Amino acid sequence: MKKHILVIPGDGIGQEVTQWGKAALDQIAKNYNHEFTFDEALMGHAAIKVTGNPLPDETLEKARKSDAILFGAIGHAMYDNDPSLKVRPEQGLLKIRKELGLYANLRPILLFDELLEASSIKAHILKGTDILFFRELTGDVYFGEKKRSEDRNTASDLMIYHKYEVERIAHKAYQAAQQRSKRLCSVDKANVLESSRLWRETVQEIAKQYPDVETEHMFIDNAAMQLIKNPKKFDVVLTANLFGDILTDEASQIAGSMGMLASASVGDGVGFYEPIHGSAHDIAGKNLANPLASILSAALMLEISFGLPEEAKALVNAVDQALKDGYRTGDIADQNTEASKVLGTQEMGNKVLG
Amino acid sequence: MKKHILVIPGDGIGQEVTQWGKAALDQIAKNYNHEFTFDEALMGHAAIKVTGNPLPDETLEKARKSDAILFGAIGHAMYDNDPSLKVRPEQGLLKIRKELGLYANLRPILLFDELLEASSIKAHILKGTDILFFRELTGDVYFGEKKRSEDRNTASDLMIYHKYEVERIAHKAYQAAQQRSKRLCSVDKANVLESSRLWRETVQEIAKQYPDVETEHMFIDNAAMQLIKNPKKFDVVLTANLFGDILTDEASQIAGSMGMLASASVGDGVGFYEPIHGSAHDIAGKNLANPLASILSAALMLEISFGLPEEAKALVNAVDQALKDGYRTGDIADQNTEASKVLGTQEMGNKVLG
Ligand SMILES: CC(C)[C@H](C(=O)O)[C@@H](O)C(=O)O
Ligand SMILES: CC(C)[C@H](C(=O)O)[C@@H](O)C(=O)O
Repeated sequence: MKKHILVIPGDGIGQEVTQWGKAALDQIAKNYNHEFTFDEALMGHAAIKVTGNPLPDETLEKARKSDAILFGAIGHAMYDNDPSLKVRPEQGLLKIRKELGLYANLRPILLFDELLEASSIKAHILKGTDILFFRELTGDVYFGEKKRSEDRNTASDLMIYHKYEVERIAHKAYQAAQQRSKRLCSVDKANVLESSRLWRETVQEIAKQYPDVETEHMFIDNAAMQLIKNPKKFDVVLTANLFGDILTDEASQIAGSMGMLASASVGDGVGFYEPIHGSAHDIAGKNLANPLASILSAALMLEISFGLPEEAKALVNAVDQALKDGYRTGDIADQNTEASKVLGTQEMGNKVLG
Repeated sequence: MKKHILVIPGDGIGQEVTQWGKAALDQIAKNYNHEFTFDEALMGHAAIKVTGNPLPDETLEKARKSDAILFGAIGHAMYDNDPSLKVRPEQGLLKIRKELGLYANLRPILLFDELLEASSIKAHILKGTDILFFRELTGDVYFGEKKRSEDRNTASDLMIYHKYEVERIAHKAYQAAQQRSKRLCSVDKANVLESSRLWRETVQEIAKQYPDVETEHMFIDNAAMQLIKNPKKFDVVLTANLFGDILTDEASQIAGSMGMLASASVGDGVGFYEPIHGSAHDIAGKNLANPLASILSAALMLEISFGLPEEAKALVNAVDQALKDGYRTGDIADQNTEASKVLGTQEMGNKVLG
């Protein structure tokens, strides 16, 4: 198979971790006789520094021409500390999601048995958890009109949904539920928000087309609580952009660490693969970042964009083996980890692929 | 001391639990020689059934005339299942919050040592946690304009903040932080939302007036994760209405159960006290609800509205003693609880106050 992959390292630890996602793809190409070619492009603070634009046209062009995109992370403390800056790294990520029509963000909460103890949640509560989030990614308060009054004393963001936006991701989520345990939980705040009422009505309608799937509706506040009280209760979770942002970060504790979670953004065309962790500037360039989420993002790419489940499985197994062998990066080490087995980014990457 | 208290049981388990909050106040009056008089009023589904209005004028009048309000819970599955209903129970709660100017919702995460094992989170992660949430309560996407297009296919809610709304609650939170460990974490989504950028700018300004307090700014997605990863990291948490709704429900797992958490809503005048749990219709009328959050809400009333910290402490101690004696309601029982000590609502109320 011939594929052309665009790597966008982005900011912070993005550089260090995408290097390993790319290396994983290279190894798969070699072992399974595929031909993967790579290009690289700028986004976020990295792009602003060079071009003044968080998503340069060149990056978008390269993205459109590629068969899949491997992304790192975005964001920089400089902008976080100064809310008045007009040009911001995150605009690049939001714009590419919109431009490429990446309306469905799949975030599987993949639990490695070896990491049960790395979580702050009790192992017996976690064991057996297997959740697949469908986070809507190109609508909601993220993309609704933003306003600031002239005196700068009033600011607003429009939380808005169109029915077709809910329908298309709902179909994807229901189709996934049919392949899994046939349970879907839709999360909203329909007791307060009109946009959530549209969300709930629409999901109720779509649900009728999937009578084999059991649907539950839950309020976001309750879901944030149930998710850690009894994660096994959930299978496919379908939710809006903002709620999905919050719930999936929270759910990363189920997997032991943010450093373990990969995500796939899909929709109208090319697929976009990225860890759910952020740019983590405090540890950037220190060989401390966990490369596993990027390697697992590469696995999602193989499975979803290229239809290569065997190759994807090989990467997941390689990660699993490194964990079974006792190797950990700092974020997933616990009191039982031998000090000599706590590895840096490079060493962990090599253990998995070496 | 002479005080007049309005009890609004609301919906679902509201009736059963406020009965115990009221009984707690009655007992305090007797033991400490105060004169507390009570009235009762309707709100939510209970009010819609009788008057067609989730917040009858009579309730609002009684509320304005009272010295404090003890509230139960709101909501009913009927409305949750039918998003198209125009008159909804929650409107009553939102309206009373707005009408009474209850802009600051204080949610202390009070940890009873006896309940460390009732949580899904590991005891050593929890131990020592002491968080006080300041949730803004009369602004945000809760109160911004709601719209539905004529064809009903587009729906929106305006997420909006005015600077003065952020300032007044920020002052309250900083003042509380000064009395506590002098750490404040403000939670927003300033990397995406304009209203959050106003929030962050304003908190940064207010922070300068409290140089003795250490301020941290955190994104909501990260906060949802950190809260369960390392809850001890937090002391005073200041956040917007929607984010506060989500984070405090999540934080209830720190205290073992939603059934344990009380809240105080304060602002321009009379104070409003309520458990953070919902109406829980599935267990309503079955003598299964946990009355402790209502009793602890009464304690918050004594402390905050009436300036009676000793009396408040007496109630907290009474709750603590019942827990020390091994008594539990179903929601806080764990595998070590003797079956004979798992109590119903009435029995638990009697143990605490008996
Ligand atoms: C960086 C930020 C804009 C982004 C988001 O909120 O979507 C991130 O948190 C994510 O979840 O991908
Ligand atoms: C019932 C609902 C409107 C309410 C809210 O979202 O504010 C509740 O969840 C709460 O937290 O008090």
